[in-house]
Amino acid sequence: MSNNSKHILKYHIKTRVFYDNPNFGPGVSRIMELVKETGRLSEAYKIMGLSSSKGWKIIKKAEEDLGFPLFVSVVGGKGGGKSELSPEGADLLDRYQAFVYELNTEAEKLFNKHFEE
Amino acid sequence: MSNNSKHILKYHIKTRVFYDNPNFGPGVSRIMELVKETGRLSEAYKIMGLSSSKGWKIIKKAEEDLGFPLFVSVVGGKGGGKSELSPEGADLLDRYQAFVYELNTEAEKLFNKHFEE
Repeated sequence: MSNNSKHILKYHIKTRVFYDNPNFGPGVSRIMELVKETGRLSEAYKIMGLSSSKGWKIIKKAEEDLGFPLFVSVVGGKGGGKSELSPEGADLLDRYQAFVYELNTEAEKLFNKHFEE
Repeated sequence: MSNNSKHILKYHIKTRVFYDNPNFGPGVSRIMELVKETGRLSEAYKIMGLSSSKGWKIIKKAEEDLGFPLFVSVVGGKGGGKSELSPEGADLLDRYQAFVYELNTEAEKLFNKHFEE
């Protein structure tokens, strides 16, 4: 593999966790991270450049496979329309993030091992 | 995470290697494996349930990013129309397979670490 500054071979890993259909992955986990930060699904979609119908579909598909809600609405408070992660959603996100982080650390080592020259 | 015999949480990892556009991954590497086994692109497409136009598009996109051909035609011999991997293609496939295999071994351990309960 030739590597120069313009033209470097890279890798990309997409990780999903699921029961029957691999619907929970980078998209929905990113929405969840942004809801943790902003408290709003609408803000998460905006940052990701997703329409709300597209964002909602990604969430629904993941929830259908997992069998539990990923978000809960926060009632009351100023402004309304706020969301946070459900307890099961927060637990899943924590595990998924740790899994993906450690996997990427291993991937970096293995990629260098097999593709360096 | 509840795990019972019907409903077991699993993971799936999709690994791509590329320069600019992540086009080389599971699809084209599977075509390459099958061409190694069968000597024919048409046979690889058939086994994978791909139309030849779809298969060709997957290959072309990967080759465009990588900057070298993945296959070479084998001229002559009985039957004609045979293909084999180019030297660069064979080298890339070897590295990719080793990378993916070892990454999946690590993923299994990390998944169990983070998702067992």
